[in-house]
Amino acid sequence: MFTPNAMRVKRSPIERVSALIRQDTINLAGGSPDPSLIPLGKLGEAYTQVVEEYGAKAFFYPGAGGLDELVEQLRGWCSTLEIGGGEVVVTSGAQHAITQVCAALLSTQDTYIHENPTFVETMNSFLYYSVQGEPVPVDDQGIRTDILEARLKARRSPPKLLYTVPTAHNPSGVTMSEERRKHLVELAHKYGFTIIEDDPYRPISKPTRTLYSTSPDDVVYVGSLSKALAPGLRIGFVVTTNHALAEKLKDLEQMDFSTSTVNQLVAAKILKSGLIQSKLGELREHYASKMHLMLQSLAEHGLKPVYQPQDGFFCLLNTNTDVEELLLRAVRLGVAFVPASEFYFDNSGQTNIRLSVGPVDKSLIPEGVNRLTKALNNNEQA
Amino acid sequence: MFTPNAMRVKRSPIERVSALIRQDTINLAGGSPDPSLIPLGKLGEAYTQVVEEYGAKAFFYPGAGGLDELVEQLRGWCSTLEIGGGEVVVTSGAQHAITQVCAALLSTQDTYIHENPTFVETMNSFLYYSVQGEPVPVDDQGIRTDILEARLKARRSPPKLLYTVPTAHNPSGVTMSEERRKHLVELAHKYGFTIIEDDPYRPISKPTRTLYSTSPDDVVYVGSLSKALAPGLRIGFVVTTNHALAEKLKDLEQMDFSTSTVNQLVAAKILKSGLIQSKLGELREHYASKMHLMLQSLAEHGLKPVYQPQDGFFCLLNTNTDVEELLLRAVRLGVAFVPASEFYFDNSGQTNIRLSVGPVDKSLIPEGVNRLTKALNNNEQA
Repeated sequence: MFTPNAMRVKRSPIERVSALIRQDTINLAGGSPDPSLIPLGKLGEAYTQVVEEYGAKAFFYPGAGGLDELVEQLRGWCSTLEIGGGEVVVTSGAQHAITQVCAALLSTQDTYIHENPTFVETMNSFLYYSVQGEPVPVDDQGIRTDILEARLKARRSPPKLLYTVPTAHNPSGVTMSEERRKHLVELAHKYGFTIIEDDPYRPISKPTRTLYSTSPDDVVYVGSLSKALAPGLRIGFVVTTNHALAEKLKDLEQMDFSTSTVNQLVAAKILKSGLIQSKLGELREHYASKMHLMLQSLAEHGLKPVYQPQDGFFCLLNTNTDVEELLLRAVRLGVAFVPASEFYFDNSGQTNIRLSVGPVDKSLIPEGVNRLTKALNNNEQA
Repeated sequence: MFTPNAMRVKRSPIERVSALIRQDTINLAGGSPDPSLIPLGKLGEAYTQVVEEYGAKAFFYPGAGGLDELVEQLRGWCSTLEIGGGEVVVTSGAQHAITQVCAALLSTQDTYIHENPTFVETMNSFLYYSVQGEPVPVDDQGIRTDILEARLKARRSPPKLLYTVPTAHNPSGVTMSEERRKHLVELAHKYGFTIIEDDPYRPISKPTRTLYSTSPDDVVYVGSLSKALAPGLRIGFVVTTNHALAEKLKDLEQMDFSTSTVNQLVAAKILKSGLIQSKLGELREHYASKMHLMLQSLAEHGLKPVYQPQDGFFCLLNTNTDVEELLLRAVRLGVAFVPASEFYFDNSGQTNIRLSVGPVDKSLIPEGVNRLTKALNNNEQA
């Protein structure tokens, strides 16, 4: 019944685990931001103001590509975050942006390179459009550009796209080093492929130079307000120097018109107020301190993650055990994580799990790790 | 640079015309509902209540398939509108729903049949996925099922899908007769193709029996809150008896997660309040009376539309002139319409235009037609 493309799209382990989380589960699974940092009062006010100021216009069709009000504010946001200049196309979150870029650029037989491990949910978009994915390993400096270069030298034709999460990588937590960033964009320029720089964690991580600003014509930048403001608004964006691509993305947005008008106006209002810009330092510090506590808590139980993240949401832990059974024990003990095997596109990482400091209350991290340790020790008697 | 699929997706004439509309233009172009009917006060209250009641949860990731709160309310909505029962999958508007259904079911060489004329913007979704579209003409009873049947008899294999807007058809304004509806689902059942019933105008049109309720296993129903509540929320939905399809649509929604969490909760709250259910009669009467006035105004200038709609938003007018030049004159005279040639998938309809009674204030319809007549008479001296 289904197309071969649709058959390649699977329910993500994150969605699977979400269904297991109860009220009292310590959530080390999700990629949502900390609920305590979502500016509820300001969001509520912004909705009231938008309805008053724009009236029915706030509820008209959004059209394709984003409202002028939001595009203007996102230009400023790109400037604040030193992302680099270019045309801004608004999307319904970063995942939607990546799907649209793939829909524009990736045919069934086109090759794309991605990190291994990589974010399982964006892989759904790539897998829908093309069967020709090639994983390149990540180490504690980011993607192994030496291995990538050797592969590129051996290829008859360049890949079409390379997908990377260079900052606070999902799921490894690694931030790509300056040297690797430089090497990566050099390779893109030399071999003629386009990098998709998926950068949702930039606003909450230590400043780095974007791949995009280093070589704008070789990179399509994908940003998001999900981590710094709120994912439920569904506001993401693409930045590109390629006018034809920006226009084609707008054409493709006609296939869903999915970016809510009222939410665009609310996001524009919040950006215009400077609220989140003024809190960037606080956001970074908050997640870095949660990550520090996570690593400390793991260390106290003799657990060492695969990589040592400095900030962001995620770290990987090799459990050396059957992860699905571990998950069931862990959920019974009141803690949830995400099995990481589906983030790997070779046979490695099968016993790894992804731990997140995103949504969990900081004070619960030590007890979360404690419960995880009990599950690891197969000791359900608390 | 772009994939062949993406190359087939063009900017719609509706988007093109939207860019020409000024503050003082009488808008006979758009497919938005009447701004005076958007319950602004209730929407504003609903946002305030949702933020208070759900707190940060209102701004988490939506997950795939829709929040339980909204799915439950949409089941009731389907019952109120006698759509028929089945699994409900929430989407980011009906356009998004149709794209997801195509992404699940339509491969490049699969044939789909559609009405001629048909809604140009949904055609973008079909054209993205497959090159094998086949138009079947519409008359004042809806799609010509006799022609369809002859084609089906002559085919070696059935088409995969048939796309129809059976009620208040876009752009013709025709509502399919009972007899044609019956014949159409019989053909789907006999020849083994799936009907996509795109039914956004149902809540604002005279009651009809859905194709879906007549033969649920042969039809995928696509509904929307855009016309009865507000398009800017981006809430649509699919109803299907096919569990595997419902699950696959949820898988595919992971490719964008584009249905805003807070908007889903707001829509659920408004549906739960019974507000729009209690206004359905009023909505129908409002648009029917606007359509009546449009037809009357056209008649006063000796203009007769191609079909005689009873309600809904649209009618078609054959201008027997160069439509693009007419549009420029019309916009200068302060009225906008949509050139309809791109709604036709053969060489017919090239001088037709689509007129809408959706967003325009009722009192402006006669003057809109007056300005249109001046443009038609090539008389720019008002």
